[in-house]
Amino acid sequence: MKLFLFYLVPFVLFFWCSQVRLVQGRLLSIATKPDPKDAVATARWLVSLNFWGVLSTISTDLDGAPFGNVVSFSDGLPNQGIGIPYFYLTTLDPTARHALKDGRASLTVSEYPLGTCGKIDPENPTCSKITLTGKLKLVDEESEEAEFSRNALFSKHSEMMGNC
Amino acid sequence: MKLFLFYLVPFVLFFWCSQVRLVQGRLLSIATKPDPKDAVATARWLVSLNFWGVLSTISTDLDGAPFGNVVSFSDGLPNQGIGIPYFYLTTLDPTARHALKDGRASLTVSEYPLGTCGKIDPENPTCSKITLTGKLKLVDEESEEAEFSRNALFSKHSEMMGNC
Repeated sequence: MKLFLFYLVPFVLFFWCSQVRLVQGRLLSIATKPDPKDAVATARWLVSLNFWGVLSTISTDLDGAPFGNVVSFSDGLPNQGIGIPYFYLTTLDPTARHALKDGRASLTVSEYPLGTCGKIDPENPTCSKITLTGKLKLVDEESEEAEFSRNALFSKHSEMMGNC
Repeated sequence: MKLFLFYLVPFVLFFWCSQVRLVQGRLLSIATKPDPKDAVATARWLVSLNFWGVLSTISTDLDGAPFGNVVSFSDGLPNQGIGIPYFYLTTLDPTARHALKDGRASLTVSEYPLGTCGKIDPENPTCSKITLTGKLKLVDEESEEAEFSRNALFSKHSEMMGNC
Protein backbone atom coordinates (compact mmCIF):
# COMPACT_ATOMS: atom_id res chain seq x y z
CA MET A 1 0.00 0.00 0.00
CA LYS A 2 1.46 3.33 -1.10
CA LEU A 3 0.81 6.32 1.14
CA PHE A 4 1.15 9.93 0.10
CA LEU A 5 1.82 13.01 2.15
CA PHE A 6 -0.31 15.98 1.16
CA TYR A 7 -0.64 19.48 2.47
CA LEU A 8 -3.38 22.01 1.89
CA VAL A 9 -2.36 25.45 0.67
CA PRO A 10 -5.15 27.53 2.17
CA PHE A 11 -5.99 30.64 0.22
CA VAL A 12 -9.29 31.42 1.88
CA LEU A 13 -10.52 30.62 5.33
CA PHE A 14 -14.19 30.88 6.04
CA PHE A 15 -14.80 31.04 9.71
CA TRP A 16 -18.05 31.26 11.63
CA CYS A 17 -18.34 32.30 15.20
CA SER A 18 -21.37 34.44 15.96
CA GLN A 19 -21.09 35.84 12.47
CA VAL A 20 -19.38 35.08 9.20
CA ARG A 21 -15.79 36.29 9.07
CA LEU A 22 -13.17 36.07 6.39
CA VAL A 23 -9.54 35.80 7.35
CA GLN A 24 -6.46 35.10 5.34
CA GLY A 25 -2.88 34.22 6.05
CA ARG A 26 -0.66 31.81 7.90
CA LEU A 27 -1.78 30.74 11.33
CA LEU A 28 0.00 29.93 14.55
CA SER A 29 -1.46 27.72 17.20
CA ILE A 30 -2.52 28.75 20.67
CA ALA A 31 -3.32 26.55 23.63
CA THR A 32 -6.28 28.15 25.40
CA LYS A 33 -9.69 28.98 24.00
CA PRO A 34 -9.75 32.62 22.94
CA ASP A 35 -12.55 35.14 23.27
CA PRO A 36 -15.11 34.08 20.60
CA LYS A 37 -15.20 37.69 19.38
CA ASP A 38 -11.58 37.28 18.29
CA ALA A 39 -12.23 35.39 15.04
CA VAL A 40 -8.59 34.98 14.00
CA ALA A 41 -7.44 33.67 17.38
CA THR A 42 -10.43 31.31 17.54
CA ALA A 43 -9.65 30.03 14.05
CA ARG A 44 -6.05 29.33 15.10
CA TRP A 45 -7.25 27.58 18.22
CA LEU A 46 -9.80 25.49 16.33
CA VAL A 47 -7.38 24.21 13.69
CA SER A 48 -4.59 23.61 16.16
CA LEU A 49 -6.62 21.68 18.77
CA ASN A 50 -8.57 19.56 16.33
CA PHE A 51 -6.87 16.54 14.82
CA TRP A 52 -9.51 15.36 12.36
CA GLY A 53 -12.00 16.92 9.99
CA VAL A 54 -13.67 16.41 6.63
CA LEU A 55 -11.59 16.89 3.51
CA SER A 56 -13.73 17.62 0.46
CA THR A 57 -12.49 17.05 -3.07
CA ILE A 58 -13.91 16.97 -6.57
CA SER A 59 -14.91 13.45 -7.52
CA THR A 60 -13.77 12.61 -11.00
CA ASP A 61 -15.71 9.32 -10.70
CA LEU A 62 -18.97 11.21 -10.08
CA ASP A 63 -18.77 13.83 -12.83
CA GLY A 64 -17.24 16.50 -10.64
CA ALA A 65 -19.55 16.13 -7.65
CA PRO A 66 -18.13 17.13 -4.26
CA PHE A 67 -16.90 14.30 -2.06
CA GLY A 68 -16.22 14.71 1.67
CA ASN A 69 -14.11 12.23 3.58
CA VAL A 70 -13.13 11.90 7.23
CA VAL A 71 -9.39 12.51 7.56
CA SER A 72 -6.85 13.00 10.29
CA PHE A 73 -4.52 15.97 9.95
CA SER A 74 -1.85 17.91 11.76
CA ASP A 75 -0.50 21.41 11.32
CA GLY A 76 2.56 20.84 13.50
CA LEU A 77 3.73 19.44 16.79
CA PRO A 78 1.28 19.93 19.69
CA ASN A 79 1.03 23.65 20.51
CA GLN A 80 3.38 24.45 17.62
CA GLY A 81 0.90 24.47 14.74
CA ILE A 82 1.83 26.55 11.72
CA GLY A 83 -1.66 26.65 10.21
CA ILE A 84 -0.95 24.46 7.17
CA PRO A 85 -2.73 21.12 7.54
CA TYR A 86 -0.84 17.98 6.50
CA PHE A 87 -2.49 14.67 5.61
CA TYR A 88 -1.30 11.10 5.11
CA LEU A 89 -3.54 9.52 2.51
CA THR A 90 -3.65 6.38 0.44
CA THR A 91 -4.91 5.99 -3.09
CA LEU A 92 -6.98 3.04 -1.86
CA ASP A 93 -9.19 5.91 -0.75
CA PRO A 94 -11.04 8.13 -3.27
CA THR A 95 -9.84 11.40 -1.72
CA ALA A 96 -6.17 10.85 -2.58
CA ARG A 97 -7.10 9.69 -6.08
CA HIS A 98 -9.18 12.83 -6.59
CA ALA A 99 -6.41 15.04 -5.22
CA LEU A 100 -3.87 13.65 -7.65
CA LYS A 101 -6.18 14.65 -10.54
CA ASP A 102 -7.61 17.92 -9.18
CA GLY A 103 -6.08 19.50 -6.08
CA ARG A 104 -9.02 21.76 -5.24
CA ALA A 105 -10.19 20.93 -1.75
CA SER A 106 -11.62 22.19 1.49
CA LEU A 107 -10.97 21.07 5.05
CA THR A 108 -13.85 21.53 7.48
CA VAL A 109 -13.43 21.40 11.21
CA SER A 110 -16.01 21.81 13.97
CA GLU A 111 -15.62 22.87 17.57
CA TYR A 112 -18.35 20.42 18.55
CA PRO A 113 -16.19 17.30 19.02
CA LEU A 114 -13.90 19.25 21.37
CA GLY A 115 -16.75 19.33 23.88
CA THR A 116 -16.54 23.08 24.38
CA CYS A 117 -19.90 23.87 22.72
CA GLY A 118 -21.82 22.46 25.67
CA LYS A 119 -25.46 21.86 24.80
CA ILE A 120 -25.44 24.22 21.83
CA ASP A 121 -26.38 22.64 18.52
CA PRO A 122 -23.43 21.95 16.15
CA GLU A 123 -25.10 24.18 13.53
CA ASN A 124 -25.47 27.08 15.97
CA PRO A 125 -23.10 29.84 14.80
CA THR A 126 -21.70 30.22 18.32
CA CYS A 127 -20.37 26.65 18.10
CA SER A 128 -17.45 27.59 15.92
CA LYS A 129 -16.52 25.91 12.68
CA ILE A 130 -13.97 26.62 10.00
CA THR A 131 -13.62 25.78 6.33
CA LEU A 132 -10.18 26.10 4.79
CA THR A 133 -10.38 26.21 1.03
CA GLY A 134 -7.34 25.76 -1.17
CA LYS A 135 -5.32 23.24 -3.13
CA LEU A 136 -3.88 19.95 -2.02
CA LYS A 137 -0.23 19.57 -2.94
CA LEU A 138 1.93 16.48 -2.76
CA VAL A 139 4.89 16.76 -0.39
CA ASP A 140 8.25 15.80 -1.90
CA GLU A 141 9.15 12.67 0.09
CA GLU A 142 12.83 13.63 0.17
CA SER A 143 12.33 17.21 1.32
CA GLU A 144 12.70 18.80 4.73
CA GLU A 145 8.98 19.48 4.57
CA ALA A 146 8.34 15.73 4.40
CA GLU A 147 10.30 15.29 7.62
CA PHE A 148 8.40 18.15 9.21
CA SER A 149 5.02 16.82 8.09
CA ARG A 150 5.75 13.28 9.28
CA ASN A 151 6.75 14.57 12.70
CA ALA A 152 3.66 16.77 12.78
CA LEU A 153 1.36 13.90 11.83
CA PHE A 154 2.99 11.20 13.96
CA SER A 155 2.98 13.41 17.07
CA LYS A 156 -0.82 13.51 16.92
CA HIS A 157 -1.59 10.25 15.11
CA SER A 158 0.76 7.57 16.39
CA GLU A 159 -1.04 4.88 14.34
CA MET A 160 0.30 6.46 11.15
CA MET A 161 3.86 5.49 12.09
CA GLY A 162 3.01 1.88 11.34
CA ASN A 163 2.44 2.82 7.72
CA CYS A 164 5.96 4.08 7.06
CA MET B 1 -33.84 35.63 7.82
CA LYS B 2 -35.28 33.09 5.38
CA LEU B 3 -34.64 29.44 6.15
CA PHE B 4 -34.96 26.60 3.66
CA LEU B 5 -35.65 22.93 4.21
CA PHE B 6 -33.51 20.66 2.06
CA TYR B 7 -33.18 16.95 1.75
CA LEU B 8 -30.43 14.89 0.18
CA VAL B 9 -31.42 12.32 -2.40
CA PRO B 10 -28.65 9.79 -1.90
CA PHE B 11 -27.79 7.80 -4.97
CA VAL B 12 -24.51 6.38 -3.77
CA LEU B 13 -23.32 5.62 -0.29
CA PHE B 14 -19.64 5.08 0.26
CA PHE B 15 -19.05 3.37 3.53
CA TRP B 16 -15.86 2.34 5.19
CA CYS B 17 -15.56 -0.13 8.00
CA SER B 18 -12.54 -2.40 7.81
CA GLN B 19 -12.82 -2.23 4.03
CA VAL B 20 -14.51 -0.15 1.38
CA ARG B 21 -18.11 -1.16 0.68
CA LEU B 22 -20.71 0.19 -1.67
CA VAL B 23 -24.35 0.05 -0.70
CA GLN B 24 -27.43 1.55 -2.25
CA GLY B 25 -31.00 2.05 -1.24
CA ARG B 26 -33.23 3.46 1.44
CA LEU B 27 -32.10 2.99 4.99
CA LEU B 28 -33.89 2.36 8.25
CA SER B 29 -32.44 3.24 11.59
CA ILE B 30 -31.42 0.83 14.29
CA ALA B 31 -30.64 1.57 17.92
CA THR B 32 -27.72 -0.66 18.86
CA LYS B 33 -24.29 -0.85 17.26
CA PRO B 34 -24.24 -3.67 14.75
CA ASP B 35 -21.44 -6.10 14.00
CA PRO B 36 -18.87 -4.03 12.05
CA LYS B 37 -18.78 -6.79 9.43
CA ASP B 38 -22.40 -5.93 8.58
CA ALA B 39 -21.71 -2.85 6.44
CA VAL B 40 -25.32 -2.00 5.65
CA ALA B 41 -26.50 -2.25 9.25
CA THR B 42 -23.52 -0.20 10.43
CA ALA B 43 -24.28 2.44 7.81
CA ARG B 44 -27.87 2.67 9.02
CA TRP B 45 -26.71 2.91 12.61
CA LEU B 46 -24.13 5.58 11.80
CA VAL B 47 -26.53 7.88 9.95
CA SER B 48 -29.33 7.38 12.43
CA LEU B 49 -27.34 8.00 15.61
CA ASN B 50 -25.36 10.95 14.34
CA PHE B 51 -27.06 14.32 14.23
CA TRP B 52 -24.39 16.44 12.54
CA GLY B 53 -21.90 16.04 9.73
CA VAL B 54 -20.19 17.93 6.94
CA LEU B 55 -22.24 18.82 3.89
CA SER B 56 -20.07 19.46 0.84
CA THR B 57 -21.29 21.47 -2.12
CA ILE B 58 -19.82 23.03 -5.24
CA SER B 59 -18.81 26.62 -4.59
CA THR B 60 -19.92 28.89 -7.39
CA ASP B 61 -17.99 31.71 -5.70
CA LEU B 62 -14.76 29.73 -5.90
CA ASP B 63 -14.92 28.53 -9.52
CA GLY B 64 -16.45 25.19 -8.68
CA ALA B 65 -14.18 24.24 -5.80
CA PRO B 66 -15.63 21.90 -3.18
CA PHE B 67 -16.90 23.52 0.00
CA GLY B 68 -17.60 21.57 3.19
CA ASN B 69 -19.75 23.00 5.96
CA VAL B 70 -20.75 21.75 9.39
CA VAL B 71 -24.49 21.07 9.42
CA SER B 72 -27.05 19.45 11.64
CA PHE B 73 -29.37 16.92 10.06
CA SER B 74 -32.05 14.39 10.84
CA ASP B 75 -33.41 11.41 8.94
CA GLY B 76 -36.48 11.00 11.14
CA LEU B 77 -37.67 10.87 14.71
CA PRO B 78 -35.25 9.18 17.14
CA ASN B 79 -35.00 5.48 16.28
CA GLN B 80 -37.31 6.00 13.30
CA GLY B 81 -34.81 7.21 10.72
CA ILE B 82 -35.70 6.61 7.09
CA GLY B 83 -32.20 7.15 5.71
CA ILE B 84 -32.90 10.42 3.89
CA PRO B 85 -31.14 13.27 5.66
CA TYR B 86 -33.02 16.57 6.05
CA PHE B 87 -31.37 19.95 6.66
CA TYR B 88 -32.56 23.38 7.71
CA LEU B 89 -30.29 25.91 6.06
CA THR B 90 -30.17 29.65 5.54
CA THR B 91 -28.88 31.51 2.50
CA LEU B 92 -26.83 33.64 4.89
CA ASP B 93 -24.63 30.58 4.70
CA PRO B 94 -22.74 29.65 1.49
CA THR B 95 -23.97 26.01 1.50
CA ALA B 96 -27.63 26.89 0.91
CA ARG B 97 -26.66 29.43 -1.76
CA HIS B 98 -24.57 26.80 -3.53
CA ALA B 99 -27.36 24.21 -3.26
CA LEU B 100 -29.87 26.53 -4.89
CA LYS B 101 -27.53 26.85 -7.90
CA ASP B 102 -26.11 23.32 -8.05
CA GLY B 103 -27.65 20.56 -5.95
CA ARG B 104 -24.72 18.14 -6.13
CA ALA B 105 -23.59 17.40 -2.59
CA SER B 106 -22.19 14.88 -0.18
CA LEU B 107 -22.86 14.38 3.51
CA THR B 108 -20.01 12.92 5.52
CA VAL B 109 -20.47 11.46 8.96
CA SER B 110 -17.92 9.91 11.29
CA GLU B 111 -18.33 7.42 14.10
CA TYR B 112 -15.60 9.20 16.05
CA PRO B 113 -17.78 11.82 17.80
CA LEU B 114 -20.08 9.06 19.07
CA GLY B 115 -17.25 7.93 21.34
CA THR B 116 -17.46 4.32 20.17
CA CYS B 117 -14.09 4.31 18.36
CA GLY B 118 -12.18 4.33 21.65
CA LYS B 119 -8.54 5.23 21.16
CA ILE B 120 -8.54 4.36 17.47
CA ASP B 121 -7.57 7.20 15.15
CA PRO B 122 -10.50 8.83 13.27
CA GLU B 123 -8.79 7.93 9.97
CA ASN B 124 -8.44 4.25 10.94
CA PRO B 125 -10.81 2.26 8.69
CA THR B 126 -12.22 0.43 11.71
CA CYS B 127 -13.57 3.75 13.01
CA SER B 128 -16.49 3.83 10.61
CA LYS B 129 -17.39 6.74 8.38
CA ILE B 130 -19.89 7.26 5.64
CA THR B 131 -20.23 9.57 2.68
CA LEU B 132 -23.66 9.95 1.11
CA THR B 133 -23.42 11.45 -2.32
CA GLY B 134 -26.44 12.79 -4.16
CA LYS B 135 -28.44 15.91 -4.88
CA LEU B 136 -29.90 18.43 -2.48
CA LYS B 137 -33.55 19.16 -3.19
CA LEU B 138 -35.71 21.88 -1.73
CA VAL B 139 -38.69 20.64 0.27
CA ASP B 140 -42.04 22.17 -0.71
CA GLU B 141 -42.97 24.15 2.40
CA GLU B 142 -46.64 23.25 2.04
CA SER B 143 -46.14 19.52 1.57
CA GLU B 144 -46.55 16.64 3.97
CA GLU B 145 -42.84 16.06 3.57
CA ALA B 146 -42.19 19.53 5.02
CA GLU B 147 -44.16 18.57 8.11
CA PHE B 148 -42.28 15.29 8.35
CA SER B 149 -38.90 16.96 7.93
CA ARG B 150 -39.66 19.68 10.50
CA ASN B 151 -40.67 17.04 13.05
CA ALA B 152 -37.58 15.00 12.21
CA LEU B 153 -35.28 17.99 12.58
CA PHE B 154 -36.92 19.54 15.65
CA SER B 155 -36.95 16.23 17.52
CA LYS B 156 -33.15 16.17 17.39
CA HIS B 157 -32.37 19.91 17.12
CA SER B 158 -34.72 21.80 19.41
CA GLU B 159 -32.90 25.08 18.72
CA MET B 160 -34.22 25.02 15.16
CA MET B 161 -37.79 25.51 16.38
CA GLY B 162 -36.94 29.10 17.26
CA ASN B 163 -36.35 29.79 13.57
CA CYS B 164 -39.88 28.90 12.44
